[in-house]
Amino acid sequence: MLTLFHHPLSVPSRFIRLILEEFGIATHLIEEYEWARRPEFLALNPAGDLPVLLDEREVPLSGATVIYEYLDEIYGSLRREKRFFPENPLERSEVRRLNCWFLNKLDSEATRYIVRERIHKREMPIDIGGGAPNSQILRTARANIPPHMNYLNWLCVSRDWLAGSRLSYADLAAAASISVLDFLGEIDWEKFPAVREWYTRIKSRPSFRSLLADRVRGITPSSHYTDLDF
Amino acid sequence: MLTLFHHPLSVPSRFIRLILEEFGIATHLIEEYEWARRPEFLALNPAGDLPVLLDEREVPLSGATVIYEYLDEIYGSLRREKRFFPENPLERSEVRRLNCWFLNKLDSEATRYIVRERIHKREMPIDIGGGAPNSQILRTARANIPPHMNYLNWLCVSRDWLAGSRLSYADLAAAASISVLDFLGEIDWEKFPAVREWYTRIKSRPSFRSLLADRVRGITPSSHYTDLDF
Repeated sequence: MLTLFHHPLSVPSRFIRLILEEFGIATHLIEEYEWARRPEFLALNPAGDLPVLLDEREVPLSGATVIYEYLDEIYGSLRREKRFFPENPLERSEVRRLNCWFLNKLDSEATRYIVRERIHKREMPIDIGGGAPNSQILRTARANIPPHMNYLNWLCVSRDWLAGSRLSYADLAAAASISVLDFLGEIDWEKFPAVREWYTRIKSRPSFRSLLADRVRGITPSSHYTDLDF
Repeated sequence: MLTLFHHPLSVPSRFIRLILEEFGIATHLIEEYEWARRPEFLALNPAGDLPVLLDEREVPLSGATVIYEYLDEIYGSLRREKRFFPENPLERSEVRRLNCWFLNKLDSEATRYIVRERIHKREMPIDIGGGAPNSQILRTARANIPPHMNYLNWLCVSRDWLAGSRLSYADLAAAASISVLDFLGEIDWEKFPAVREWYTRIKSRPSFRSLLADRVRGITPSSHYTDLDF
């Protein structure tokens, strides 16, 4: 059995969980706090970030990009027309571009700071940065959300799925990002109807169930988080 | 002919230039400044970062990860035993992990800040952040270099090449990073003899020549930058 070190509100962790669910791969989940810098975890991944997947022989694979390319090579390529990568290399590049966008750019401009300020800092010891949220960081991160939502809305208006006519890894990466922001009530859904329609479709997939069941100590997800027809 | 939008001191741009040189692919190079946010460039890559490759039909491919996976699929896979990816998926994952490390982690913890403070801010208009380097940012970025060099030294001591027994994309990614820091005289070579030996080997490859010829207005590269036996 595979093992995944993850956190419920880590975007790259959610992306890999969605892929594992879509592929029907039973996985043992272990919750990990990056900020704790646990020596046993750093021994698996010296970069110290989530997610980390242990394969059947407990070889660690670190980072969402590494893990999804590996899962695609081992499992995804057997799925034929249900594969989440298109056959054409240029179209695959578009999927990879959007994966980078949602896993790295949106995350490093907004999501991870909001999660850190609102969630992690409440559990972190004071001497490593715990405490009350920094309102200036929150304000800056929140201001970065609408441009990303506009871009996502444009993609949703222009294409059936984000990277083209078929569901791809790009949809799972974007949905992982959006689901964290939605959990925290950070999305103004009225303004982005096309994203809402796309997100309703993807949120209704069985692979999403375990994400919708996630709970984090001391925080109630936004009222529509688990609502499939919000 | 392919076209690459790059900057001489952009680590991900150098990584792609090394691959193109190794593959013997003639490429038209266009120097671009990310900070200028040129509308024509943003139309190619809305993320606004370097590098961007235009394929023969001028379709843009954005970002080093997207571009190297594409180049490997189109050209690299034909190189057989000279390919820069191992055959085994787990070994390929190790190459991808190290690529992420050197292209993203080292870059976002040190290199890109040093380049911005020391190089770009001299050319940027004041109203978008140009001016004298911020010494606190420089100090923080510089303090992040030795841990990365220690890790790289450990890899060089443990393995023939960074990801195993053969030259791989990981060596090109790390060399792209190190070459920018070395250009700026930011590496204390006395402390990292194994890195120095590895870097001498990779710097002597013909693919490195064009990087060693790079010059940036108003700055002299460190005295040993072009010295193959430093």
